[in-house]
This record gives sequence, structure tokens and C-alpha cells, in this order.
Amino acid sequence: MRFSQLYAPTLRENPSDAEIPSQALLQRGGFIRKVAAGIYTYLPLGRRVLLKIENIVREEMNRIGAQEILMPIIQPAELWKMTGRWDDYGPEMMKFKDRHDRDFTLGPTHEELLTSVVNNELTSYKQLPMTFYQIANKYRDEIRPRFGVLRAREFIMKDAYSFHDSWESLDEMYLKMREAYERIMKRIDLKFTIVEAAAGAIGGNESHEFVAFANAGESTILYCDCGYAGSDERVPYKGKYRIYEENEKELELLFTPDVRTVEQVADFIGVKSSKIVKSLVFRGRDGYVMALVPGDKELNFEKLKSYINDQSLEMATPDEVIQNFGVPIGFLGPVGVRNVRVIADYQVKYMKNFVVGGMKKDYHYINVNYGRDFEVEEWADLVVVEPGDPCPSCGKPLKGEKGIELGHIFKLGTKYSESMNVKYMDKNGELKPFIMGCYGWGISRTLGAVVEQYHDDNGMVWPLSIAPYEIIITVVGKEKELKFGENVYNFLKEKSDEVVLDDRAVSPGVKFKDADLIGFPFRVTIGKMLKNNKVEIKVRTGEKFVVEANIQKIYELLEKLKKEYKLS
Amino acid sequence: MRFSQLYAPTLRENPSDAEIPSQALLQRGGFIRKVAAGIYTYLPLGRRVLLKIENIVREEMNRIGAQEILMPIIQPAELWKMTGRWDDYGPEMMKFKDRHDRDFTLGPTHEELLTSVVNNELTSYKQLPMTFYQIANKYRDEIRPRFGVLRAREFIMKDAYSFHDSWESLDEMYLKMREAYERIMKRIDLKFTIVEAAAGAIGGNESHEFVAFANAGESTILYCDCGYAGSDERVPYKGKYRIYEENEKELELLFTPDVRTVEQVADFIGVKSSKIVKSLVFRGRDGYVMALVPGDKELNFEKLKSYINDQSLEMATPDEVIQNFGVPIGFLGPVGVRNVRVIADYQVKYMKNFVVGGMKKDYHYINVNYGRDFEVEEWADLVVVEPGDPCPSCGKPLKGEKGIELGHIFKLGTKYSESMNVKYMDKNGELKPFIMGCYGWGISRTLGAVVEQYHDDNGMVWPLSIAPYEIIITVVGKEKELKFGENVYNFLKEKSDEVVLDDRAVSPGVKFKDADLIGFPFRVTIGKMLKNNKVEIKVRTGEKFVVEANIQKIYELLEKLKKEYKLS
Repeated sequence: MRFSQLYAPTLRENPSDAEIPSQALLQRGGFIRKVAAGIYTYLPLGRRVLLKIENIVREEMNRIGAQEILMPIIQPAELWKMTGRWDDYGPEMMKFKDRHDRDFTLGPTHEELLTSVVNNELTSYKQLPMTFYQIANKYRDEIRPRFGVLRAREFIMKDAYSFHDSWESLDEMYLKMREAYERIMKRIDLKFTIVEAAAGAIGGNESHEFVAFANAGESTILYCDCGYAGSDERVPYKGKYRIYEENEKELELLFTPDVRTVEQVADFIGVKSSKIVKSLVFRGRDGYVMALVPGDKELNFEKLKSYINDQSLEMATPDEVIQNFGVPIGFLGPVGVRNVRVIADYQVKYMKNFVVGGMKKDYHYINVNYGRDFEVEEWADLVVVEPGDPCPSCGKPLKGEKGIELGHIFKLGTKYSESMNVKYMDKNGELKPFIMGCYGWGISRTLGAVVEQYHDDNGMVWPLSIAPYEIIITVVGKEKELKFGENVYNFLKEKSDEVVLDDRAVSPGVKFKDADLIGFPFRVTIGKMLKNNKVEIKVRTGEKFVVEANIQKIYELLEKLKKEYKLS
Repeated sequence: MRFSQLYAPTLRENPSDAEIPSQALLQRGGFIRKVAAGIYTYLPLGRRVLLKIENIVREEMNRIGAQEILMPIIQPAELWKMTGRWDDYGPEMMKFKDRHDRDFTLGPTHEELLTSVVNNELTSYKQLPMTFYQIANKYRDEIRPRFGVLRAREFIMKDAYSFHDSWESLDEMYLKMREAYERIMKRIDLKFTIVEAAAGAIGGNESHEFVAFANAGESTILYCDCGYAGSDERVPYKGKYRIYEENEKELELLFTPDVRTVEQVADFIGVKSSKIVKSLVFRGRDGYVMALVPGDKELNFEKLKSYINDQSLEMATPDEVIQNFGVPIGFLGPVGVRNVRVIADYQVKYMKNFVVGGMKKDYHYINVNYGRDFEVEEWADLVVVEPGDPCPSCGKPLKGEKGIELGHIFKLGTKYSESMNVKYMDKNGELKPFIMGCYGWGISRTLGAVVEQYHDDNGMVWPLSIAPYEIIITVVGKEKELKFGENVYNFLKEKSDEVVLDDRAVSPGVKFKDADLIGFPFRVTIGKMLKNNKVEIKVRTGEKFVVEANIQKIYELLEKLKKEYKLS
């Protein structure tokens, strides 16, 4: 490809909305363009990388015997009603009506759809196990799409589904999939870890996440020298609860004008945040839920959803809190509250004389005590475990690292086959629901994760296996240099379609900057040195080599460097 | 692939809703499954064929220098409002709102989206011409999806868009695209023709369709020995108009109980259909339109839409006709009608003493005369030209053939760049709107078109280039045959992933039937003849060969047959 014909509109400045490196660099390098919040166009360089990622994933799926299919993006509501997820999935599901007023969704996942497709056609234990996958768009109407392709509303996934007649057979495919995912991570040079995870809206009995390390990641991985690792959405709190040996003081309603957050309350009243109980209100399938957690801990939303088994749970809006509870969010509390299911973190049971919202604007209660001043219907582990908290396995302090969830595998069991009544005939002629697994991989998200791991001040640094092009030939000079550049280009292009000739009429500085920004693994510079019959080959990771201006020699050195190319 | 592990659920009977061969055979062969009206899942065999079609199209696009991108399926309404197509596109556009109540559409096409993406980034004549393409899902909410993948609501297309600074440059790309499409047709062995076409909702100055011949096709191609060819949606009527030299008779309102269609009216009153004028009512952007055409001709809906320049035009429903005009559809007529724009075919001007609906239930007017009894505001060519009508080019009778539109190329000109104000700077530093072209190819539709052209009583007959697999090894026998089958399979699989081993424990009859139904180009039968050290190779198109049971010999014969493989 000639750069003069390549559509790669590079930008000198970071886009104003870019919060993290990959979001900035993929736009600056001309890989993606934002169309609307969480919705992107992949320009030629971005599309090339995506195709390479897709092919790696496709090869690894085919290798373990998964069969590629393609399911529709638009799915009839009836299927989702069979499993209850039409209502349960929550507001992230994009719904619409066709011209005949029938309900459809833009599929966020395909368990229902595929289970219904194989119904009455995959019928015998003799056909099992059977594993399918597709590479296709998925839709989730994120309330706050952000971080570019890392949290988009339209994104590309590989999703796979397996059907089994025994848990052993599922375990086997689960392991094969795990190994395939490890190979994918290695082929694209990603540093990653595998952790136990929350099953979320997908459900099932067991699940693991494949997390690529990245400072900008939204997942926190907690791990321990003993080998334990888990997503912070799921790690159980195994620390000691603080026991307070105090006498119960008299309940007081304190005037706290405009004091709303835990920090403000702690400051105003002069207590530690551990002496405050936060009251958070959510709207679920069956009404409102109030969660109580100590002021020094974060509420773990995944634990709460999983505890009440309602994936449609959402934070109540300020308006609806005022409408339903008569006070602004900052003054909510369990004392005197009505028409809400109250669930508290275990720690609250042991606290004494703490502070809560006054259920009256600009007031807080102090010296609150559970049992005397309010009742709790249910107790649960509701907090986010943090680095330093004890390891659930060995008790030593956990370490933490940020990461991006790229893969997620689930043992679904019979959740979908039972609710949809989809069965096979076993050896004894009995009808049984399939035991199922499902396995997701974020294709477009991988693009972002790789850039998060591999970039420097000058731009992106691509792994060889998914670089948009492997080589750029940068011509700095006039006829003679351009002529030689053309010859090298034509030779290398014959070998493989992995070379760009920068033949643009722009300054050498612009050429060098763009080559670094786009992140070609190798730059062949044909410039001043050509007088001395030399050219320079620069590896994007830093090293430079001077080689004779001989096409065969250039080619051989590039081949050698490719074999040695390693990202730190 | 082993057939025992391949998910290819074949059916012995045609599905009840299958109206045409490809719809029946793709389902019977286990290539596709219907999810809802016009919405399909592609099973492993179908997905493989699609991937091969995609790759052929991708290669031909890359060959002419088009750059692959990927645009979002969900598009913000704002873009479509800039060109007026948000309202104009009509009810085939699937629309929805996101959680923030913003309007989106599932893209039926991407002119607006890409034009907005390149805005302010493709800025100089030096970068032109520039051509982009993508392979992605498209959405059209067909009122009556039918014919399987030929007229679906969700389908896969390759769409390309080009940007130019001169008409000459557009002409050049238009020609390159035309040649690329011809190569695609040839690579998948399709018999086809290229015709001038109606630009429809896409608009622009010139367009051509690439039509694969097929009896089940929805397009009619009219052509002539002189070289003229056109789609019947577009061919102008150049026949003589019938002149009636009669005296005007007295208008009469006749009681015609329950007489509604042209045939019923002709029968009841005892006139030829050419003495009747049909009155058809449509709902458009700016209100109702009544079209008048002679009873012996079909109204050409594309001509009408194009004449009034309103792609959102739709046939009015029976209910709304009664509500707005006070009569059932069968009794509509131009005499005394109000609140409707009346457009008549030129022929109506020359007719005398004809029959029209009475604008009163169960009545028709006879002896109606234009000018005396009603007024016409506009005259146009509104009829479908048929085989036998004169060629617009030379006047000889046209011939007709049915076909399936696979490709459609358009010279858009500045339609989109002007309405969206997207410009480049020319050599003289002046800002000018891009001259554009766009180029569609139906990927999933190609699957159906190929089966329409190539099938027989036993099933599908695939061109080698897009066969799901090229070879099936059918083992008929016990250990010895199975053992040899395995060896042949392993050898051929090493050469390429284009072979299936039918190792299923089913009868030879079932194996042969499935091999023919799925349509593998070559079947290697390892059975009784193995005793005499022979195997049979059957070509799907008919010929059989007996060859020594020697793996190398079998391989060599297959290679030879592949080179000679031709579909009639």
C-alpha cells in the first residue's frame, strides 16, 4: 500500500474526549473514528488489525473443533421471554419494534437464539459434544460508554456455545476453550491472568475471566502469592469484622445543611468514615432495594445483583428517590424508611453509634444502632474487596492490579435448556436437557487492550501478529531515494502484503512521526545514507540497524528481525 | 471434517414455507435456519459458503484499490436528517430509540455515515480518488420478506463508496467496479447480465444492475438483439399509444355489486380491460397520490416514486382508503375525487368512453372521458414495459428474462456531499463538494442466487470456488472400507481443508442422498469395489470414474477433475 493512497488521517493532538491512551492513539493514528457515544467506524488500519485478530480467534476456535456459524443480530422477543431475560436483562438491552409492531432486541448475547435453533435438530447423545461459534456485532446500551473501543455500545465479539450430555464433557470443552484463549493471548503478545469471575446476566455455575493487564482497565484483579486470583466483582470478603464495645448512646437528629457525601458527613460531624453507614437505593424487578454498607467500603454492585438474583437492578435516579422516599439521595437512611427491602453488609451488624441519613432534607441521625433504631431484613457480603484485604484462600494480604476483561467463559449447566425445554435423547432413550457452556471473547476490545499494553510517548507499538502492516518504507529524499524505495517496496510487496511505502510529499519529520504513531514494527529509512549505499532499519521498540542498500540484504535482515521481534 | 461431528441437519422434505428451490434446498441441506420472517441463522455449511463469497468479493475490491473499513450498523438519526432521508426512506427503515431517547436506525445503507466520517479529514484533491468498502449486515424492514435469503430483512452486503474531484475520475472507478463485479460473477460461475437500472432511494445520475438469471428472480430484464438491456423497473414505454376515434357518450353510474378487480369489471360490464382505467392510491411524504393507468397495463411503482421524487411512497391500506375517500379500494376513481394529487399515464389522455370506479361502494362509471368528467394534473410514463413492447433503442419487440439483482452501482454525483456540505479543496484552492459513487453487492443473496442457477432434483450443485467443501468421502462398508477411508481423508485433509469424511453410522442411501443434497462437487465412494482394489469418484454434475484404490492416484484424479470442473 502506498501511503499517498492509504486513508490514515493522523492527528497531532489528542482528541478532547480521550480519557486513556488507546482511545487517544487509535484516533490519532487514524484507526477509528467516533460516530456517536460508544459507536465507532473502523478506518482501513483499524479494520486490518481487527481482521487479523478475527483470524487468530477463528483459527483457535477451529483448532478445538468449534464450528463457525452466523446468527442474526436482531432477535425476536419471544425467545427472551422464554428464559425471563426480556425483563431481567435490564436497560442495557436495546429493544425496538418492527413495522408490524413485533418486539425485537439487538442481541447482547445469543444463548436463547442458538438454543432455539438447535431445538429438535440436535437430538441425540451421539451428536454430542457440539460447539458453535460466531464472530459478530453485539449491542449493550451502556449508560456511560467510555474508553473508546473498550466500553462501546456496538462491539465485535466471538461468542461460542457448547452442548453436552455430561458435566465431564462440559469440563473438557471448558478446558479446551481455556487453552485456546491462552493461545490467543500469547499469539497477540498480551500479558494476562485468568481469574474466577461473577457470572452476571449470563448465569451458570462457574466462570472465569481472561484479563489483560492495563492501568486503564476497568476490572481490578486481586491476587495472592498462594496462587489465588479473582475479579474484584466477585472476591468474597474474608476479613475480620470490626467489633465495637460501646454503650448505645441516645439517637439524635442533627441539622447537616447540604452535607451529602460520606466525606462531607465525616468532616461536618467529625467522625471517621468507618462510623458512617451508607444507604444506597436501587430499582429492581420487584421494587426498590436499600443496601447498607460501612462508609469506608465500596458497595459491590455485582454481589448485590447476584445476592438478590436480579440482573435488571439499577441505581435509582435522584428524581425517583425524591418521588418515592421524599428526600434527596444524600439524606437517605434506614431509620424510618418504608416500602423498601433493606439488605445490609455483615459489618453493619457489629457497628455501634453510627451515622446515617435523616430521611429528612439537610438532616442526619447520629448514634444510630441496629436493632434499636431500625431493622434489617437480610444480611450479605456486599463490599468490594481491596488490595490489602485478606486472601480468601490463605488469609495473607491480597495484591491488586488493573486489567481489561477480554475473555469470559461460563459453565451454564442446564439454565437455558431447561427454561426453553430443549432436550436430547440419552443412551437409555430418555429426554434430558443439554448441559451447556458459553465462551465470549471481545474482538474489538482486544484492539484497545493491545494499545493499552503497548505504546510509548510517540505512539502505538504493535505485536507483529496483528500489526496493521509490518513494514513502512520511509523515503526521505528525491528521485534517487524514491526510485530505490519503489524497488524495495515492489520486492517486499511480492513477498507479502505487509508493507507501506511512504511516498507522500510531506516533510521527513511528518513521515517519522506518523510511522511511530501508527506503530509499524519496522521502518526502513531510505535517505541521506543512500549516497554511501546504506539504508537504516529501525525497530519500533528502539533498535536501529544499518544495512547495505541491497534489496535481498534488506529483506533478509527484516526476516531475521521479524523472528526476533519481541515486545517487552 | 468428519460428518459425524459436522452440524448439518439435513431434511428429507421441503419446508412448508419454501416457495422457491434455493429457499427449500438451503434449509434441507442444513445451510440456513429461519429465526423469524426474513431473519436467518447460517449453520456451519452456510457460513463456510458465505465466507468464501466474502473472500472473493474482498479480493476483487482490494484488487481495484478499494480500502476495507467497518462502519456501525446503528446510525444516529441526525445524519439522515441532513439529507432528508430520515423521512424519505420510508417504512423499510428500522428505527429505534436508545436509553437516552435518541433516535437511531439500523443502517439500510451508509452514504450519510461515510460522508460524515470523511468530513474535514478527506480534504484535498491530492488524496483523490479514494474508495472504501465494507462487508457488513444491512437492514430493510420488507413488508413481505420472502424467498429465503433472496429477500430478507437482515442481510449481508458489500457496500463501497468512492470520492472524486471530477466526473471523469468517477467514470473510471465506475468502470473498474463494473469489471470487478464481472470478475466476481465469473469466479462463482454465475450467468448474468448488466442492465441500466432505477436509482431508487439511493439516488444519483446513472446506475447499473448486475442480474443473475433465475426463474425465481424478482427482477425482469428486458433486452433486445440490438444490445439494449434494462430492468423492467426502469425501461421507458416507447410503444404507440392507442388513439380512439369515438364520440363521447353520456356518463353513467352503473350498479356493479361486489365487482372490484379489473377482470371482474371487464366481465361484468362486458368490455376489454383496455377500456378500463385503474385508479391506485398511495400515501407519500406530502399526502395522497392517485395514479391512473390503463386496465391492461401494470403500474410501475419505481417510475411513480421516481416521478414524484418520494421514496417513502406506499400503497394506501384498505382501511385508510375508506377513512380518507369514503369508498373501498375497488371503487376508487378520478371522477369527483378530492384531496389527492392525480397523476395519469400518457395513454389515458387518448382513451375515450372508459370505465372507472364510481367513488361509491358497488358502483362504476362508464363512458368516462378525460377533460369532460375529470381533470388530470400531471401526465407521466407510469407503466411496466413487458416483453413484446418495443425496444426503446431500436423499436423491435423486447425479450424478457427473470433474474436476481446481485450488484448495483450508482453514480451519485454530489447528492450527498452537497446536502451534507462535505467538501474538498481543488487545485485552485476552491472548496467543492465531492463527486461520489456507490456500489453494492448482496453477499447473502449470492448464496441463494447460486442455488437457483445450480441445482437438480437431488439437491444443490456448487461451483468449486464457493462449495462448502469440495470433496466428500462416502464410506460404505465395515472396518476395511472405513480404514481406507480414514487414510484417504487424512491425506486429502493435509492438502487442504476441503474434505468431509462421511463416517456416520447411517445407511448408504442416506449418505448418498445427503452428499447430493449438500452438493459437494466430488464424491469418493469407498465400498464394494474396494475388494477389487477400486474406488469410485462421482462428479456432482454426473460423470463417474473408477480409479485404483491408491491414495496418490485418487488425489491426482481429483486434482485433474477439479481443473476440468465446469457447471453448465
